[in-house]
Amino acid sequence: MSTPADVVAQLRAVLGERVDTSPASLAAVRADKSGHAASGTPLAVVHATSVADVQQTLRIASATRTPVVTRAAGTGLAGGANAGAGEIALSVRRMDRILEVRPDDLLAVVEPGVVNADLNTALAEHGLWWAPDPASRATSTVGGNIATGAGGLLCAKYGVVRDAVLGVDLVLADGRLLHLGHRTVKGVTGLDLTSLVIGSEGTLGVVVGATLKLRRLVPGEVRTIAATFPGVRAAAEASAAVTASGVQPAIMELMDAASLAAVHRLLSLEPPTPGAAQLTIQTDGPAAGLEAERIAEVLTAAGGTVAVSHDRAEGERLLAIRRSMHPAMETLGTALIEDVSVPRSALPAMFDEIARVEREHGVVIPTVAHAGDGNLHPNFIFDAVPDEFGVIEAPAHIWAAADDLFRAALRLGGTLTGEHGVGVLKRRWLVDELGEDQWDLQRRITRQFDPLGILNPGKVFAD
Amino acid sequence: MSTPADVVAQLRAVLGERVDTSPASLAAVRADKSGHAASGTPLAVVHATSVADVQQTLRIASATRTPVVTRAAGTGLAGGANAGAGEIALSVRRMDRILEVRPDDLLAVVEPGVVNADLNTALAEHGLWWAPDPASRATSTVGGNIATGAGGLLCAKYGVVRDAVLGVDLVLADGRLLHLGHRTVKGVTGLDLTSLVIGSEGTLGVVVGATLKLRRLVPGEVRTIAATFPGVRAAAEASAAVTASGVQPAIMELMDAASLAAVHRLLSLEPPTPGAAQLTIQTDGPAAGLEAERIAEVLTAAGGTVAVSHDRAEGERLLAIRRSMHPAMETLGTALIEDVSVPRSALPAMFDEIARVEREHGVVIPTVAHAGDGNLHPNFIFDAVPDEFGVIEAPAHIWAAADDLFRAALRLGGTLTGEHGVGVLKRRWLVDELGEDQWDLQRRITRQFDPLGILNPGKVFAD
Repeated sequence: MSTPADVVAQLRAVLGERVDTSPASLAAVRADKSGHAASGTPLAVVHATSVADVQQTLRIASATRTPVVTRAAGTGLAGGANAGAGEIALSVRRMDRILEVRPDDLLAVVEPGVVNADLNTALAEHGLWWAPDPASRATSTVGGNIATGAGGLLCAKYGVVRDAVLGVDLVLADGRLLHLGHRTVKGVTGLDLTSLVIGSEGTLGVVVGATLKLRRLVPGEVRTIAATFPGVRAAAEASAAVTASGVQPAIMELMDAASLAAVHRLLSLEPPTPGAAQLTIQTDGPAAGLEAERIAEVLTAAGGTVAVSHDRAEGERLLAIRRSMHPAMETLGTALIEDVSVPRSALPAMFDEIARVEREHGVVIPTVAHAGDGNLHPNFIFDAVPDEFGVIEAPAHIWAAADDLFRAALRLGGTLTGEHGVGVLKRRWLVDELGEDQWDLQRRITRQFDPLGILNPGKVFAD
Repeated sequence: MSTPADVVAQLRAVLGERVDTSPASLAAVRADKSGHAASGTPLAVVHATSVADVQQTLRIASATRTPVVTRAAGTGLAGGANAGAGEIALSVRRMDRILEVRPDDLLAVVEPGVVNADLNTALAEHGLWWAPDPASRATSTVGGNIATGAGGLLCAKYGVVRDAVLGVDLVLADGRLLHLGHRTVKGVTGLDLTSLVIGSEGTLGVVVGATLKLRRLVPGEVRTIAATFPGVRAAAEASAAVTASGVQPAIMELMDAASLAAVHRLLSLEPPTPGAAQLTIQTDGPAAGLEAERIAEVLTAAGGTVAVSHDRAEGERLLAIRRSMHPAMETLGTALIEDVSVPRSALPAMFDEIARVEREHGVVIPTVAHAGDGNLHPNFIFDAVPDEFGVIEAPAHIWAAADDLFRAALRLGGTLTGEHGVGVLKRRWLVDELGEDQWDLQRRITRQFDPLGILNPGKVFAD
């Protein structure tokens, strides 16, 4: 066995200054934005600047059987990129080049560390965009979006990450480089390993490049609709009615009363009507105006108080209320941010279940939802008590409430996680959703990529 | 070892009349629509009518180590479902029920044997459709579409099968049933095994059910544009110009002079101008009219003679010319139908390569292309000489020409197969595209689903 000092010395010998053992850096990579941090301190942070750096790191990791946790911006919400004792934190954040933009083929080739918003700024010059838009898009990277299979606000109309990636370059645990996928619209040569890597949370390899499927910027205006309802169930029913009407909004966000109140306080806005819930809906494209009219009719018929805005800036202001959810929750305490997804028609029933869990477990669960696609973010609020290592862990009664909520989502035909991933926070429920046979099969598949089990051990699959 | 007679007896004992050993049935399952047939005669055809039938068949197959070739309508074009000596042909064609249609959640749950067109007829009553539209849609099944990762005419605008399936139920080689995927718009719980199964051509398990992502029928009119060009390169350049213009047609099909001449002869139409190639383009949705005008301008500027039709029936008549390609090729001899796909901007260069291959190898290669997505179907025409078992195999000089063409597609950033799959016809080139390391990894992944190697052996992966 190599000692930790050996491993760091071997990394330094080939990567020099790119191996970082400063206390601040080692502390920073222990946590993501989930509120959870890893136990202990990793061996080193490697700031890779090239594919070769990643390969060298993995060769040393394999030779010394040292676990590797890949990360970039650290904006994850499931603890999937948290690096702890005995582990190498491999950061691809500095691999942030846009290597190729092809407007004629509607594709771009990028390195994993490019920030989603920076990519889209560069693409806008060509009249193009990459559709995935997680709420973290100003800071999260394309590599992280791919590793988690990120979603966002626009998914019902414009798809998720899996719909927007043609191929990835992947470094395996032993340092070999594979080129997965294709540059073409269609391609069915062999098994679709690109899709397998998307959402695999660092367990199959390190994504060192991606060929992205682009869209042209949507022409025309946008309309933004704000609708207030007496309660969250009425708002959820109204959103289901919009989906059932056949009109496809670009964005349809739901905020319950507790979320709305917290954000209004944070932004020093006038307090909302007590108990009221809100839908914020945006239409785009050539038919934006007509679609907004039709949606306003549906919402009014569902009992909403509706206002339609033609002004893009006013639309952004309305959506900023939704985007302030995370900072607003931080003012209430520590939040365990959950991510269940249910079939769209089950949204009202899922809000009933959340109310039941709040009641039965005596907890507060402010909830927002991407109502257009049935993805909810219940925030379990608690008072954090860091342990001796500074690690925050949700208390048992919060986990009991979360457990109850997860099982309710599964009963409604839903899934544990729509867009954040499993990480460490949801690994104990993974087998409940997959079943023993599928869990075991998935585990054996990861071993074909990583026979020694050095890639992000303990994440996704709890042994 | 069990004798073939033992295996059939065991199948009969549990499946009774659903085990078919009539000479006509055994002969029929040796071939698909590729022009290729398996050597020898399979042991039996099992006509499964339930998930339990599939499980029973696979349990017996595993216990006796008998290979299983899953098939349904037999419309494949790569020999992937051809069953030969010593194999069980497991037909899921009779499992053709539509189990659930949910307009509010835009999903349907179906059995694998339902015919694509029959499904869409049923969905139309709800104002819905399933977008994948292989040219075989009148006869091919949803299960076959999933097994091959089928494409079709509408892919650039409406996606491929992988974009239109939320989950599959899969029976493994040992008879266990797994439920893969989810019913929600978003879902990232664990690895995406649903995408792995799509396009896996019967090597991972038997698809016994699928949860499909539906679309609402597109409102508005369609416009159909026919444009004639002096040669195929000019037509290919015009199609690339349409893509580059930013207008997204629903359909954009290209036919070269040889294809056009053969179809016109078959349909007793007036002969086309010698050497002329044709683009047939359709726009749909609320902006169909404006988009057709813009496309007509681009085509005229590119040197085309352009006619726009507002009449849906006339549009169907124009597309029927394209859809008659397969029967027209049959009038010329036996066709080896290829399926390369290249980035859209490389379409003119790929036609240059086809002309070069024709010249250098002295072969005739009538070619059509889904020009909107860069997917070409070159048809290598030859005189068939069946061997002593009635098996048709393309002669060496045809394979040499095909080899040259495949390598050209790879050089242009393309892929071996856009939508037909690898089957037996392209397995010898698989490693050229994937590389040794990825080929080996894919092979090992299949073994996690099928440790004994009884699922469609010899297909996709040539040992």
